[in-house]
Amino acid sequence: MVFHNFTELRASLGRQEKRTAAVVCAHDETTLKALEQCKDQVSAVLIGDEKKIRGLTDLPYEIIPEEDMLTAARKGVGLVREGKADFLLKGKLDTSLILKAVVDKEHGLRTGRLISHLAFLELPGYHKLVVLTDSGMVIRPDLEQKKEILLNAVDTLHKMGYEEPKAGLLAAVEKVNPRMPETLDAEELTRLSREGKLAGCYVEGPLSYDILMSPESAKKKGYESRIVGDADILMVGDMATGNILGKALTITAKGKMAGIIVGAGAPVALTSRGSKPEEKVNSILLAAAGCR
Amino acid sequence: MVFHNFTELRASLGRQEKRTAAVVCAHDETTLKALEQCKDQVSAVLIGDEKKIRGLTDLPYEIIPEEDMLTAARKGVGLVREGKADFLLKGKLDTSLILKAVVDKEHGLRTGRLISHLAFLELPGYHKLVVLTDSGMVIRPDLEQKKEILLNAVDTLHKMGYEEPKAGLLAAVEKVNPRMPETLDAEELTRLSREGKLAGCYVEGPLSYDILMSPESAKKKGYESRIVGDADILMVGDMATGNILGKALTITAKGKMAGIIVGAGAPVALTSRGSKPEEKVNSILLAAAGCR
Repeated sequence: MVFHNFTELRASLGRQEKRTAAVVCAHDETTLKALEQCKDQVSAVLIGDEKKIRGLTDLPYEIIPEEDMLTAARKGVGLVREGKADFLLKGKLDTSLILKAVVDKEHGLRTGRLISHLAFLELPGYHKLVVLTDSGMVIRPDLEQKKEILLNAVDTLHKMGYEEPKAGLLAAVEKVNPRMPETLDAEELTRLSREGKLAGCYVEGPLSYDILMSPESAKKKGYESRIVGDADILMVGDMATGNILGKALTITAKGKMAGIIVGAGAPVALTSRGSKPEEKVNSILLAAAGCR
Repeated sequence: MVFHNFTELRASLGRQEKRTAAVVCAHDETTLKALEQCKDQVSAVLIGDEKKIRGLTDLPYEIIPEEDMLTAARKGVGLVREGKADFLLKGKLDTSLILKAVVDKEHGLRTGRLISHLAFLELPGYHKLVVLTDSGMVIRPDLEQKKEILLNAVDTLHKMGYEEPKAGLLAAVEKVNPRMPETLDAEELTRLSREGKLAGCYVEGPLSYDILMSPESAKKKGYESRIVGDADILMVGDMATGNILGKALTITAKGKMAGIIVGAGAPVALTSRGSKPEEKVNSILLAAAGCR
């Protein structure tokens, strides 16, 4: 199966047992409002300033009082380790603190995999959700890290019910050019995929954005491929490219975005400071779907 | 003055003496149709396969018969050098061939400046044309090259009548981070600007796309600056970022784009293989405006 939009993602969650979020520093109006909007799909344990939380919401969830931010993050991680929560949701604290608790060697959620960011986008003119990675965690991944980033995306999509996600490796051009290292990495990842070393997905690149996202452009350029106009994953060469692309797609192209961090034992739902309330809601739904 | 859209750019050309394009390998239907649509604003000399040209158009311009592509490009450059044409327009040949003639040390149009690409974008939700650079020529510019790329954009805008263009230096973040070289370069360019070493423009960065292009995001993040929501130039750290961004803005955000190559003695109007006829028209108008 494939999700065509966030509405469909929400509907799919209604058909399964509710997942539970461990909400770190839950004394945050935006986060609590987002949780209210997901209450039919997602349950929660709220960690944070109890008095403030009670002043902001009537949600009937258990509250674990904890005002220290890092301790709150550690308690959230503990809930996931004990099976009392399925994923983490960031409230009023910096992403770096929640990640510190996640990657803690003794008490964290490390799995040996690289931690990376997935941005799910619902775009005008595109028929399904597409995952952009990595636009928020790994600054300048090498080939080995790109492989992990790709597999993190593929694993999450598998958990969501996708069978064989298609990943397009973005570059400025379709031809391999030694002066553009991202095209060399893309060629190598495509080769690994063809040799069956990246199981459960279809990988192709380097591809320019127009070839990948506009069947009309691909036709004009004489490029034929089953990924053209049908990619599930857009992988970029470095974080700056992904970050700028993702923001252009939401701000100027008016796409909807949701973001989670994956590669640890459980997804972490988060949104950036400038994001809209709807983004937070969709990120929660996404994290719930990605921890199946 | 500032151009709010391509229609305004076209109108401004009607108020001045017509500029003349030297059209290299003019036996190309798209190019000739585009020229027809600009005939009130731009004149031309057509270099190429005379028989084919006559079969494709009734435009009353002089035809210089020349079927060899590189020789045609050289003849086009010659026309500019002799003052018989003001800019070059690419017809049915590879960009690399026209550039070969442009950068020829003895007979070309070199000025000692770096050659770079400017993509002018008319974007939904943005109130004026914005220049994206460099998304098509310089793969991975160093600081010195970035300075030249920036000044090429500023010079062109000055020729078009802009007084003090504002340039935003794009990155994933607003804070300088030594692990993100583009933020260091942005900081240095901003410093040079503050010290008056980049005259005739306002430069600021590193800036994330959301801060730069969404006053709402900037407000949420508490970022105040006179460039927020009002940039004339978006400068990227490398070509891949610019290329992917530009295509996302045209394909997914449905923006209109026009492209020219600058830094030589005359602009070169060109469009990529996959682009729309309207893009070619706007590129011609842009080159005519940029050679004032």
